[in-house]
Amino acid sequence: EALARLPVIRKSELLEQQKRARPFGGFSAVRWGAACKRVFSSPGPLYEPEGARPDYYRLARALYAAGFREGDLVHNTFAYHFTPAGSMMETAAHALGCTVFPAGVGQTELQLAAMADLQPNAYVGTPSFLRILLDKADEIGVKPTFTKAFVSGEAFPPSIRDAFGARGVRASQAYATADIGLIAYETPGGEGMVVGEDIVLEIVRPGTGDPVPAGEVGEVVVTTLNPDYPLIRFATGDLSAVMPGTSPCGRTNLRIRGWLGRADQTAKIKGMFVRPEQVAAFVARHPEVARARVIASRDGEMDAMTVMVETEAEDAAQYEVSVMDTLKLRGRILLVPRGALPNDGKVIEDQRSYD
Amino acid sequence: EALARLPVIRKSELLEQQKRARPFGGFSAVRWGAACKRVFSSPGPLYEPEGARPDYYRLARALYAAGFREGDLVHNTFAYHFTPAGSMMETAAHALGCTVFPAGVGQTELQLAAMADLQPNAYVGTPSFLRILLDKADEIGVKPTFTKAFVSGEAFPPSIRDAFGARGVRASQAYATADIGLIAYETPGGEGMVVGEDIVLEIVRPGTGDPVPAGEVGEVVVTTLNPDYPLIRFATGDLSAVMPGTSPCGRTNLRIRGWLGRADQTAKIKGMFVRPEQVAAFVARHPEVARARVIASRDGEMDAMTVMVETEAEDAAQYEVSVMDTLKLRGRILLVPRGALPNDGKVIEDQRSYD
Repeated sequence: EALARLPVIRKSELLEQQKRARPFGGFSAVRWGAACKRVFSSPGPLYEPEGARPDYYRLARALYAAGFREGDLVHNTFAYHFTPAGSMMETAAHALGCTVFPAGVGQTELQLAAMADLQPNAYVGTPSFLRILLDKADEIGVKPTFTKAFVSGEAFPPSIRDAFGARGVRASQAYATADIGLIAYETPGGEGMVVGEDIVLEIVRPGTGDPVPAGEVGEVVVTTLNPDYPLIRFATGDLSAVMPGTSPCGRTNLRIRGWLGRADQTAKIKGMFVRPEQVAAFVARHPEVARARVIASRDGEMDAMTVMVETEAEDAAQYEVSVMDTLKLRGRILLVPRGALPNDGKVIEDQRSYD
Repeated sequence: EALARLPVIRKSELLEQQKRARPFGGFSAVRWGAACKRVFSSPGPLYEPEGARPDYYRLARALYAAGFREGDLVHNTFAYHFTPAGSMMETAAHALGCTVFPAGVGQTELQLAAMADLQPNAYVGTPSFLRILLDKADEIGVKPTFTKAFVSGEAFPPSIRDAFGARGVRASQAYATADIGLIAYETPGGEGMVVGEDIVLEIVRPGTGDPVPAGEVGEVVVTTLNPDYPLIRFATGDLSAVMPGTSPCGRTNLRIRGWLGRADQTAKIKGMFVRPEQVAAFVARHPEVARARVIASRDGEMDAMTVMVETEAEDAAQYEVSVMDTLKLRGRILLVPRGALPNDGKVIEDQRSYD
């Protein structure tokens, strides 16, 4: 589609643009004042505006799907300082008519004391901090009063979800970022995550702007229609994949498999940086090559590089010049048939270990 | 006036009532839901609701008097976690149309980096943290971009105000608490602090509900007309005094001298607690006694207690029984003429030192 012909914006580029033109590098439609309630700093440092519209980060629908309702008391353990995380969750909870206890991170014992007194019925935070709170509560013999939890910011494997469930806490997750807000969220009875209905999501080959075939793991690229801070083809740096079919929950929007790792696979091999963009440049040179994967390994005390090439061709030597031109390194070339490379979004795999 | 006949509410009492009936001990008109956006925990622990009305803590007028205007970028170093301090300032800044960077406390170097990038023109926080930021900025050779500061939460002596002024930062202070919100604020060109126009403020003898004569130092007692969380004759535990006359700034409301220390002067003498309420009970027994002051001192290795009594009477012995009955301790009685005790709000003075 036409969108795929526009360039992607990477975080590094946003950072450069922001440095050139403070505060938002020309990407924001709002300036200091009533239309911009808060400004945050996230690692980089990148600065993000929070517009004045209710539920600015569009997370209310995700909280609603997690069972949050008007009149709930939400114990929010995301930080409010510097990062938008606390505010993202709070503005969503307010949109639903919930009261929020802004706990922030740490101070576990004080948090449990406040929970014992105020009896919140809902938790918001990372899964790992929820685990810390539940373990500490067991240790001191307090029974947590919340029955639902909304988690984000980390991987959330089924084993941990089940452990929470066994303790009476039904937890749902969402995938959101500081720049975009909600990207995708879990629904009751659904599989995978439903993409936020107000964004356009693409999965692309890491380091490029080229959409991958449906189902293949790649980098999440998002286009928002946020009038205050529109981002067109913003590369999140996260890996995911589109799920086929529609959700059993009844929602018909695109689904993804959730967060599957980080897309930035830049590695230093033989003292040289090798970036996903370079692997993409190698693939682009050869129409018959569908995919390639660079593997960094150790050969005794030395780094070694192998380039796995998905192709029907049989002569590996024909790719040597391209490898030197694009990757700037000499490497072993291994031809594999189409579909032989694993579907994990990796174009550079670092197998070296220094333990 | 009639108000003086109602009992005062002390923090200890609020705490007891909250323990008896969570969350707010019957003092709040709001429950979890859209009418109560946040709930906070302040030392005690006391819990305070934040209603949904804009500028809930009524601090916008104080920020305006400090020179804050629409379009300002406010660097807010009050904490947002547990305590309402961060939210108190933020909701006021939003009411004026300012953008807020929620910095919180600590992380001085990261804060300076964000300040260098975002160029805030206004600071909010404690005077001591402002000092830390300015000193650190000097040290690393960065020039702070803010020209106005709104400080609270601590004593703010003129010497520190002048030091800020010499660095190009005009700082104003306000006196506010977690339960009441704004109590009094400084105005340009004014002396003392103008009392918030929407509260009733009284100065009472510490440990009692009895108003002191105008100008005398005593405990600040506040009645708010906050429909969500009305407090009638709430004893703040802080000392202040009414200033005579009207402010040169033109505002005609009552003025006070600002924060003059803590009113809770409970001391342990000879192993027994002596409380301001007991001193008040002693004074109440003798119509001719205007004021009294208990002084705790050391006599060799022993505690000693002196009771200074403002009276025209000449026979000290007549007070011995009352002292035993009310203070539960034997003490030296010293008669002084009317007006001889210092005007500092103290009814118990601890002169002991254990260095």
